[in-house]
Amino acid sequence: MLSPKPGRLGVFVPGGRLSAAKLLKASGLSPVVLEARDRVGGRTFTARNKETKWVDLGGAYIGPTQNRIFRLAREYGIKTYKVNEQEKQVHYVKGKSYPFKGSFPPMWNPIVLLDFNNLWRTMDEMGTEIPREAPWRAPHAEEWDKMTMQELIDKKTVLFVNVNVTSEPHEVSALWFLWYVKQCGGTMRIFSTTNGGQERKFQGGSSQISECMARELGDRVKLQSPVYRIDQTGDTVVVETLDKQTYTAKYVIVAVPPSLNLKMHFNPELPSLRNQLIHRVPMGSVIKCMVYYRENFWRKKGFCGSMVIEEEGSPIDLTLDDTKPDGTVPCIMGFILARKCRKLSELTREERRICEIYSRVLGSDEALHPVHYEEKNWCEEEYSGGCYTAYFPPGILTQYGKVLREPVGRLYFAGTETATEWSGYMEGAVEAGERAAREVMCAMGKIPRTQIWQTEPQCVDVPAFPFVTTFWERNLPSVGGLLKLMGVSTFLSAAAAVGLVACKKGLLPRS
Amino acid sequence: MLSPKPGRLGVFVPGGRLSAAKLLKASGLSPVVLEARDRVGGRTFTARNKETKWVDLGGAYIGPTQNRIFRLAREYGIKTYKVNEQEKQVHYVKGKSYPFKGSFPPMWNPIVLLDFNNLWRTMDEMGTEIPREAPWRAPHAEEWDKMTMQELIDKKTVLFVNVNVTSEPHEVSALWFLWYVKQCGGTMRIFSTTNGGQERKFQGGSSQISECMARELGDRVKLQSPVYRIDQTGDTVVVETLDKQTYTAKYVIVAVPPSLNLKMHFNPELPSLRNQLIHRVPMGSVIKCMVYYRENFWRKKGFCGSMVIEEEGSPIDLTLDDTKPDGTVPCIMGFILARKCRKLSELTREERRICEIYSRVLGSDEALHPVHYEEKNWCEEEYSGGCYTAYFPPGILTQYGKVLREPVGRLYFAGTETATEWSGYMEGAVEAGERAAREVMCAMGKIPRTQIWQTEPQCVDVPAFPFVTTFWERNLPSVGGLLKLMGVSTFLSAAAAVGLVACKKGLLPRS
Repeated sequence: MLSPKPGRLGVFVPGGRLSAAKLLKASGLSPVVLEARDRVGGRTFTARNKETKWVDLGGAYIGPTQNRIFRLAREYGIKTYKVNEQEKQVHYVKGKSYPFKGSFPPMWNPIVLLDFNNLWRTMDEMGTEIPREAPWRAPHAEEWDKMTMQELIDKKTVLFVNVNVTSEPHEVSALWFLWYVKQCGGTMRIFSTTNGGQERKFQGGSSQISECMARELGDRVKLQSPVYRIDQTGDTVVVETLDKQTYTAKYVIVAVPPSLNLKMHFNPELPSLRNQLIHRVPMGSVIKCMVYYRENFWRKKGFCGSMVIEEEGSPIDLTLDDTKPDGTVPCIMGFILARKCRKLSELTREERRICEIYSRVLGSDEALHPVHYEEKNWCEEEYSGGCYTAYFPPGILTQYGKVLREPVGRLYFAGTETATEWSGYMEGAVEAGERAAREVMCAMGKIPRTQIWQTEPQCVDVPAFPFVTTFWERNLPSVGGLLKLMGVSTFLSAAAAVGLVACKKGLLPRS
Repeated sequence: MLSPKPGRLGVFVPGGRLSAAKLLKASGLSPVVLEARDRVGGRTFTARNKETKWVDLGGAYIGPTQNRIFRLAREYGIKTYKVNEQEKQVHYVKGKSYPFKGSFPPMWNPIVLLDFNNLWRTMDEMGTEIPREAPWRAPHAEEWDKMTMQELIDKKTVLFVNVNVTSEPHEVSALWFLWYVKQCGGTMRIFSTTNGGQERKFQGGSSQISECMARELGDRVKLQSPVYRIDQTGDTVVVETLDKQTYTAKYVIVAVPPSLNLKMHFNPELPSLRNQLIHRVPMGSVIKCMVYYRENFWRKKGFCGSMVIEEEGSPIDLTLDDTKPDGTVPCIMGFILARKCRKLSELTREERRICEIYSRVLGSDEALHPVHYEEKNWCEEEYSGGCYTAYFPPGILTQYGKVLREPVGRLYFAGTETATEWSGYMEGAVEAGERAAREVMCAMGKIPRTQIWQTEPQCVDVPAFPFVTTFWERNLPSVGGLLKLMGVSTFLSAAAAVGLVACKKGLLPRS
């Protein structure tokens, strides 16, 4: 009897554990999913109530080239819709709002812009020499891994730019961040809404993907079953859960963020590199905040709801319209990121004064009168550790990266952090879960080694358009956008929020 | 019935868990110690066999100002002895050996030396403004925490020094490293053997301290009892161990490295800052290697056994004589540190070729013929995660430091990482364990809050001598010594090994 354990701690974006189990079941095997939480979906979490209809408190955005997650959505009949960006965006800096559309705010020094333009292009060029499956083998891996992103910015811009950079860029390895952007398809793909990572959301919420897979798997999915022990000293792997159940399996897939491997006691102990890796890759910090209003007052003023807010005193750095696609349930989604997240997590919702900053930026008192509020602080989740993904501090990727998904006996490792395309996203979780499932099938002699890694055909409904090559000359990115990008990088799906910044500024060729 | 749980995971330098329990018992309470391993001592580990008599495979060195650990040793009648440094030291660089004594190797450029001299002095000056109990409140905390030690070196020495720095300095926050050095008493105290942190060892091995305390505590110490669950939702705290035992207590002291808090599942979940802190403070990397010889051939050649080896191809960076104080069991102790530890941990002992480098450095074929070998790779220990202590990557200390020892309900936190004097050392473990015990006693109304933190009278047998103020002018440190210092900083008790470097070079006034 085979009962692989594709994940446990509930720490996951959908598709990690469940998509592994789905594939194994489809191949005639008998997987069991041990899920720590009382729900599936992990780092996606769709809440439903009468005020919001539904709201994605966790991972939400999808876009072109994320073909695996679109494949699953299509199979289950889950529709997507485009995030609203019809009206103008707003850039708020030094206490003033600058509406803009399709271009960058006009008051910035062209030299500065040019320099940042150059940095962005440089990032993509650096990315080309980083193997997505093994960034530690890049020709300059050691040099770049010793540098933080902060240092990279300093080196590239020290002559031109004299701005007060936000604090988090120095927390992450430049090599890791360059890899992260590259494996999402480059700066344009990761930073864009239209034609990029934040183009769409799921109608009805992203958790549906996990919920549909869980329904299909039936009682193979065990909720509220956090794993605390994995013993592979005998003929089978023995797995014990907090609810005092013992499972045995021929193989186990550990589909949780690397650092949550620490929640388990291993016998025998993990090899020394993996034993240390899992201490070294922290999860990012984010609180996702939804403010609901009676009316979509910002659209009436010509704003699409996207705000880029450069003010240290503001809890929120980035917003996006989160109104339902039919125009009901007017809502603004905002992120509290990294250092602000840590600073504000102990305050009450009122003390954070989110509506006040929206009121200033949008120039409207209506912002002060919300009718409902939802938020999710992912930093307090024991079985996530943070969101949206793990980041690598300087020096870790080159020293420990190679064991990230290296099997240990009959243990295999999934989780979006182990993916090579859209790692950190729902897409990456599916890639990793399915790859780990095929590793198990290969170990069982059911498929050859060459079939473990598979490419995914493009989703016909959501094609990816190439970015125009001369685009940089025509659409310079903003300093603010770049700094935001760096600033949010630690909370990783940096892309998720960061993407907004760039695209909000009209960096995208409207396809 | 009170059964505080002063630690569990066996992850400790002696005195952490046990010294807390010892103090609680002495105060009339009923502590229970849940120890993960099948032995006490944690990161100290004295092995005994006929070849070595005894050997400290983990923490070993002690010195002036570490008064708490000397107090315990004295109580149990455990003697100390001075580490041998009678003969000459050797500095090996660019393939050549330079014996020296009481001074630095003569071939270095005085300008370079001057500059490093300046950096060392600067480090102490910077340290004076860092509060040892709250480094995140230093006036320049944010600025220094954003910098890695690598960057600090670059800034201070960019004009004078053009050396190829080792990789690890950039892994650690400059603020954290400056704090670390400061709370050990400054650069001279931490780096020195004589009059410093590495002056002595325990006759018979360091584990004896723990063993004596454990004997005193009797069956209150439960071996092989790793804790995997802590529930404080009821009237008492319920603690479950892997051997299926359940303990209840009014209070619990978690006396393990911060990141090993992750081995436990908490109910309710930890507050968000602590939940994220424990993902962000990895343990250093070190393999401790002892090579035994028939004869103490190095002393006959006029060498004391201390080697500072600057060669990328050498597995070992630093050695020290580990012969017994009566001259028996000739032995050289060497450290494989940080990046070398990660690189070499998968090789066999033979492949590492330790004896070959000793032979080259000492100019003796006798080094090629050991009679015995002992080693301990601390990176593979599940219940340590590495040695000797946790380090803080850039950005973490200012953001999360304040919750390092902040109680959570009825949970209190000890472990050498939470100490304010000699954190990272056996001394710090005792300080932390006793402080946490007094926090519990305060919570029970047995002592006032003002008695929680206590200073320790100076050990009469091992007095601390002041360092001569004009010392820097008379004894310039070496570039190599500083770089080694930085290089080993991540394996932290950086001090333990690093201290050697400086003192080996004769930085110390012989008192």
